[in-house]
Amino acid sequence: MTRKRVYFFGGGRADGRGAMKNLLGGKGANLAEMTNLGIPVPAGFTISTEVCIHYYERGGDFPDGLEADVDAAVKMVEDVMGGGFGNSDDPLLFSVRSGARVSMPGMMDTVLNLGLSEKTVAGLIAKTRNERFVYDSYRRLIQMYANVVMGIEMDGFHNLLEAKKSERGVKDDMELSAQDMKDLAGQFKVKVKELSGKEFPDNPREQLWGAIRAVVQSGNIPRAVSYRRLNDIADDWGTAVNVQAMVFGNMGEDSATGVAFTRDPATGERVFYGEFLPDAQGEDVVSGVRTPHPINLAQKKDGDEESLEEFMPEIYRDLDTIREKLELHYTDTQDIEFTIQRGKLWMLQTRTGKRTAEAAVRIAVEMEADGLISRKTAVMRVDPHQIEQLLHKRIDPDASYEVLTTGLPASPGAAVGRVVFTAEDAVSWAADDDPEKHRTVLVREETSPEDIEGMNASQGFLTARGGMTSHAAVVARGMGKCCVAGAGDLKIDYATKTFKVGGLVVKEGDWITLNGATGEVILGKVATVDPELSGYFATLMEWADEFRQLGVRTNADTPEDAAIARGFGAEGIGLCRTEHMFFGEDRIKYIRAMIMAADEAERREALDKLLPFQRSDFEGILEAMKGRTVTIRLLDPPLHEFIPHSEEEIEELAKDLGKDPERMKEKAASLRESNPMLGHRGCRLGITFPEVYEMQARAIFEAACSLTKKGVDVKPDIMIPLVGEPKELSILRELVERIGVEVMKKNGVEVDYHIGTMIEIPRAALVADEVAEHADFFSFGTNDLTQMTYGYSRDDAGSFLKGYIEKGILVCDPFQSIDVKGVGALVKMAVEKGRSVNPELHVGICGEHGGDPESINFCHHAGLDYVSCSPYRVPVARLAAAHAVLRARMRTEG
Amino acid sequence: MTRKRVYFFGGGRADGRGAMKNLLGGKGANLAEMTNLGIPVPAGFTISTEVCIHYYERGGDFPDGLEADVDAAVKMVEDVMGGGFGNSDDPLLFSVRSGARVSMPGMMDTVLNLGLSEKTVAGLIAKTRNERFVYDSYRRLIQMYANVVMGIEMDGFHNLLEAKKSERGVKDDMELSAQDMKDLAGQFKVKVKELSGKEFPDNPREQLWGAIRAVVQSGNIPRAVSYRRLNDIADDWGTAVNVQAMVFGNMGEDSATGVAFTRDPATGERVFYGEFLPDAQGEDVVSGVRTPHPINLAQKKDGDEESLEEFMPEIYRDLDTIREKLELHYTDTQDIEFTIQRGKLWMLQTRTGKRTAEAAVRIAVEMEADGLISRKTAVMRVDPHQIEQLLHKRIDPDASYEVLTTGLPASPGAAVGRVVFTAEDAVSWAADDDPEKHRTVLVREETSPEDIEGMNASQGFLTARGGMTSHAAVVARGMGKCCVAGAGDLKIDYATKTFKVGGLVVKEGDWITLNGATGEVILGKVATVDPELSGYFATLMEWADEFRQLGVRTNADTPEDAAIARGFGAEGIGLCRTEHMFFGEDRIKYIRAMIMAADEAERREALDKLLPFQRSDFEGILEAMKGRTVTIRLLDPPLHEFIPHSEEEIEELAKDLGKDPERMKEKAASLRESNPMLGHRGCRLGITFPEVYEMQARAIFEAACSLTKKGVDVKPDIMIPLVGEPKELSILRELVERIGVEVMKKNGVEVDYHIGTMIEIPRAALVADEVAEHADFFSFGTNDLTQMTYGYSRDDAGSFLKGYIEKGILVCDPFQSIDVKGVGALVKMAVEKGRSVNPELHVGICGEHGGDPESINFCHHAGLDYVSCSPYRVPVARLAAAHAVLRARMRTEG
Repeated sequence: MTRKRVYFFGGGRADGRGAMKNLLGGKGANLAEMTNLGIPVPAGFTISTEVCIHYYERGGDFPDGLEADVDAAVKMVEDVMGGGFGNSDDPLLFSVRSGARVSMPGMMDTVLNLGLSEKTVAGLIAKTRNERFVYDSYRRLIQMYANVVMGIEMDGFHNLLEAKKSERGVKDDMELSAQDMKDLAGQFKVKVKELSGKEFPDNPREQLWGAIRAVVQSGNIPRAVSYRRLNDIADDWGTAVNVQAMVFGNMGEDSATGVAFTRDPATGERVFYGEFLPDAQGEDVVSGVRTPHPINLAQKKDGDEESLEEFMPEIYRDLDTIREKLELHYTDTQDIEFTIQRGKLWMLQTRTGKRTAEAAVRIAVEMEADGLISRKTAVMRVDPHQIEQLLHKRIDPDASYEVLTTGLPASPGAAVGRVVFTAEDAVSWAADDDPEKHRTVLVREETSPEDIEGMNASQGFLTARGGMTSHAAVVARGMGKCCVAGAGDLKIDYATKTFKVGGLVVKEGDWITLNGATGEVILGKVATVDPELSGYFATLMEWADEFRQLGVRTNADTPEDAAIARGFGAEGIGLCRTEHMFFGEDRIKYIRAMIMAADEAERREALDKLLPFQRSDFEGILEAMKGRTVTIRLLDPPLHEFIPHSEEEIEELAKDLGKDPERMKEKAASLRESNPMLGHRGCRLGITFPEVYEMQARAIFEAACSLTKKGVDVKPDIMIPLVGEPKELSILRELVERIGVEVMKKNGVEVDYHIGTMIEIPRAALVADEVAEHADFFSFGTNDLTQMTYGYSRDDAGSFLKGYIEKGILVCDPFQSIDVKGVGALVKMAVEKGRSVNPELHVGICGEHGGDPESINFCHHAGLDYVSCSPYRVPVARLAAAHAVLRARMRTEG
Repeated sequence: MTRKRVYFFGGGRADGRGAMKNLLGGKGANLAEMTNLGIPVPAGFTISTEVCIHYYERGGDFPDGLEADVDAAVKMVEDVMGGGFGNSDDPLLFSVRSGARVSMPGMMDTVLNLGLSEKTVAGLIAKTRNERFVYDSYRRLIQMYANVVMGIEMDGFHNLLEAKKSERGVKDDMELSAQDMKDLAGQFKVKVKELSGKEFPDNPREQLWGAIRAVVQSGNIPRAVSYRRLNDIADDWGTAVNVQAMVFGNMGEDSATGVAFTRDPATGERVFYGEFLPDAQGEDVVSGVRTPHPINLAQKKDGDEESLEEFMPEIYRDLDTIREKLELHYTDTQDIEFTIQRGKLWMLQTRTGKRTAEAAVRIAVEMEADGLISRKTAVMRVDPHQIEQLLHKRIDPDASYEVLTTGLPASPGAAVGRVVFTAEDAVSWAADDDPEKHRTVLVREETSPEDIEGMNASQGFLTARGGMTSHAAVVARGMGKCCVAGAGDLKIDYATKTFKVGGLVVKEGDWITLNGATGEVILGKVATVDPELSGYFATLMEWADEFRQLGVRTNADTPEDAAIARGFGAEGIGLCRTEHMFFGEDRIKYIRAMIMAADEAERREALDKLLPFQRSDFEGILEAMKGRTVTIRLLDPPLHEFIPHSEEEIEELAKDLGKDPERMKEKAASLRESNPMLGHRGCRLGITFPEVYEMQARAIFEAACSLTKKGVDVKPDIMIPLVGEPKELSILRELVERIGVEVMKKNGVEVDYHIGTMIEIPRAALVADEVAEHADFFSFGTNDLTQMTYGYSRDDAGSFLKGYIEKGILVCDPFQSIDVKGVGALVKMAVEKGRSVNPELHVGICGEHGGDPESINFCHHAGLDYVSCSPYRVPVARLAAAHAVLRARMRTEG
């Protein structure tokens, strides 16, 4: 490694640049960039990610010469900031923070106040004349260092702090005296020795290297690995180490620290938005230990403490100017951290601000309008994953309910679920088969990175402490989940798994509802409604449509679903499952009679009774999609899914049908299968019982003819499922065409229809050229294709899939995002082979993957004509399809 | 179509040649060839297969000008044979027979005696002065024509014949008089009119064309289609029509008809072997209506009627000369039909003689020794499918049993099964889940082509009538099944489903045993033993080994199976399943304790107890295969296969293990899967419970080390099943290697081992390049690969697979013979991708297909290194592997 390893920044000039994210991490690159922009940033230096990778590769060795480079950089910082690291008269302190390429808030470890020792403590007291501040800083250093570098649990320190407070009869840390802090520092050091057997290092240089090493190592601890997995970040990226001169927001009443967003991260409104705490360190704001104050008057609500705008008007104005400068420079909303030390403003960090979907859409559209960004960029700024939340329920405005208590509306939407108190419980309840147990709301004093997986498993989060930028709030917005934070009335008792509000006790398993728009917490289930979409949203969707090449259809079985999907912009139905239509109270008996029929004649009799139902179903859905393609899949599931399983139910059914109960039981038993997924279903039923598909084809053509006669434009596409061998399709195509000719002739009407197949069996992809000879279209049924390609039963894979993802064997659940290497190879093969014999072949996807942005990107590149997904994912798909085009264009354009 | 359509033969010259099988069918080409060889063949002509294809394509139209061609050919026949077709003074009669490219005995329809009418009957009587013969021929014509051309059931005619016999008080047709036959002819004509509403045509020309059309159409009737399917003959081959002058074996005491083989078709011995009937037509011999006489003294046994050698010594000598000529010309054993008409010998047909496997081997080896054929040809002469029968059981020579009765030893081997009386019953009993009901012996008066599928489903056949060349006998030898024919003591009553021998009644479901070597029929089950293999067999196998390139291994789980397979020439074990070892009485409790363990510690405790068992299993099998590779597959099936299913059994197990029965039931329930085939099994278990694979790896290495120390050469290959993702293999490879290093170090011994995987999941084939990075070998598990590629559960596919084969959707059961297009494409892809990153990769197959000749041919061409199959199929595989090489060489060379 011959490259520069240590990058200095400070005093208006930096070795690095904002573009060096891979080398310096997001934070380091931004510190360099801000410095270059002339923004006041405490001086410091960044150790590059390559050093970290070197360290991992050599099993814990830093490159030769690194120490000298660090020493030189320390010297430069001292020159800019004044004082000296380890200098007992005028000590300079450092923070050490990790900086990964992609920001992972709270996930990487930080140590502050490095450089305090017995000697420098004395010097700093002499210099600042603020003994309490110095000892507070010292005990914080010990505590953090012990935890992050020496791996000691925080509990011991926390207990000592609490003991000190009760000894002193105070509630808040602020009320403790200098002596108290000094005592605590002493007790903490004893504790360190007691728990680790080692002394807390009194040597600043030893502290610095301990912290650097800890940051580098922290990139490989389980919670970092878990976060990366959830966010699809590669495991082999190193982390940079940022060493920066400390500035203090806790130096007294003329000091403060805060966090802000350049626009409202919840709504996207163009207002400066943030929080601060006087006389505090940054950790105090984000950890939610104290409830912060609003940054300006615009945000201030009744009862709120004094805003920064009032408290320090000049500083606020400076900050506001910096905000504008940053937005112009980065052309995106920034999330900034600042500290005011004795009346001087320092910027500690800027990064792209996380935002709700609503905010993302509004910011993108407004920035485009302001000429800050191009339309392309605006479209790319909104994450398709995120916008689904916009389309989801909110509390029904007409619902009446009693509010239990109110917290901060930290992330919008609504959450209805059963109360759980630990992340583990959230995960285990979510794994429960009972859908009523599935949905939980995680209730915590405050959340922490350890809770990530539990948060992923719940509907929403309720915290007793913490603000809009607390961990819970940030994570919730990122996940698109509802969060009510800082609901201070909550008295949580983890031991009994209950919380109290006033006299009321709410226990684990009780239903609650959160209103993310208002911060209301409601006991019980409250009705929710679908959202109205903003004009910004419609604009963004229009832009997405300008770029995308993939068509977007929906999977819908009813006219109602079809209507919702059309409202979201669906251009047709990619999958209309006919079997759901059979489950109606008035139909199920006929389908059962059909299944239990002794011979074809009896079977046809039952089918004749089903025909009118199917016909009217098809009329409804064809009419709802007026002139848009409706792809109707013929009967797919195995017949045993339609018949009852218990002995009594079968006996009752026998009575209904006038059949011998014993023979019925035999028949039911004979239908049971060892592996129904690989059994007698799909077109195999159509081959064995052609009369069933005949009835369905008849119903489709009769519906289409009847509507055509009424002047309604109809475009039915008939889809034969589970084809594995071309002859299956040719035989059934002939059957459908025969019925079509017959019905159309009888009605004197021509219907524009197509016949195609699902490609959901690996073999169909392998012989797709032969299949395509009989198909007008292919639709990839990637659920089944994934099951068979991987050999994973979706119903059973739960027992090992989670472990597979945890162990890194699978990057993600292949049922959620398409397996590009395996399943994707079959998809590409089928498209190529299919089009090689039938260039007109229309190709789409109708599995769950049709609504997953990564899978949609794959579909675009595989040359598909359209994707089809559930109605609520239609806008996701439209946006993801645009992203696929733009991402490719960006790659080509460089 | 401009080609010649009608090919004349007769009088020593023919238009066609033996090589024109595709155009003239097997029979027509051979008639032309025989004629060209100067062998006396009744003149005639063949209408080419192209005419038939034209007829199918045009929906029943013959090409223009065919009539004129036929007229011209009839004229040529008249010139050679004398007389005239339809000439009332000197009538010439014709037979019309179908001739497919490949001989399908008895499957295609035949009409004899065409040209008899009111007028020609009179003329023929005048000419022959044999009224009885003429009326017998006439009534036969009516009966056959009615059946074959007019589609009338035979029963009516049969009943009239029987009625006439009982009226006359006679038992045999022979005893009926000329007047009786004349009466019957009249009654038959009335019957025809009654049943069809049409007159039997009195015009010879109309008769001829009716018969030609019927033969052409008969190529498309269900029983022909069914035969082709069973014999893998393509459906779109046309049939030729052979029209030939009739010669009569039933013209009195100086006439006869017979069927013969140039060598003994049962043993292969170089003796002339055949049967004849004096004063009879060919149908009488093959239909088994009369029991024929031996052709020569060599065959004559006590009680047999006079042989042809005695009866007509000169004719016999002529026939024997023709036999030699034919064998020299065709360099293969021939199956010939001849007729002696008033002392003149006519050859009606010659074709390659069907033979038992034993005969095939001996004939091939002896013909090579005689310089008739090359060694290559000798190897190719034996069908690998067939030789398996040589390796199967025979009646235990030490068994004592009582013989119920004896018939002809028509096909060798032994059959033990339950008596069934209809082909349908054989099929439905074979479909029964109960293995005890599975095995049937089909008992019939005589079998017929309609019974083909039932015969396929039974162990063997017992008939009351018919000889060594009867339908039952020919089919049995072709299928490699045991048959006892012509057991005349049997009195079969289809109505009550019983047969009587003397006073004893045997009913449906009773066990019987057939001895195909002796013709004995035995009540009950008799012990059987494995066969001794002839020296001819060993010679042939050696020759096969000279040619083949594929290695042949065996699938064996026990030292006993391994020993049998080595005896058959297995070069290693391609699949040793470890799970079967767990089912022993002394082990199953530990595996159950392992499964039911509450935690890893408890699981390890149970595994520790299993370890010694596994170690001694592996020692046994490694020792049995001394120095040959033993491929050991780690645990594969889902855990629930090892635990009991009933509540009571689980409670008992709980008691045994000292566990709470309720928790055990829950645990058992939690292990149940919706689709176990796609569930938690194979390497997924190894990933979830690494301690299980650790124990197995330890057992393998400990066994290998212990044997190595004793000086036994061992070559264990460890196979990880069900890999779908390369990381699964890399993780488990690491695990196995770790244990290996540890055990080898402890023992101070180096073991030569490899680690590889089964390719049985489609995805593994798709990413085989990445898998191969961690594999020393691939072994295709084509059973599972077929299940997942087709989406067919082997356990459930029965409900539709049969229908699929019947409807021609599938050519054959893809679990029996590899699906080259789909599964084969994945196999080829995996081999190519695997070798692209790992050129040393050793590749084999261990699914059922490893013993199937067609699949072996595929494996050869896909570049596999070896196949592995069940011990009894090892010789089949050796021969099939040689065939694969020779077939390819033949294609290249010509």
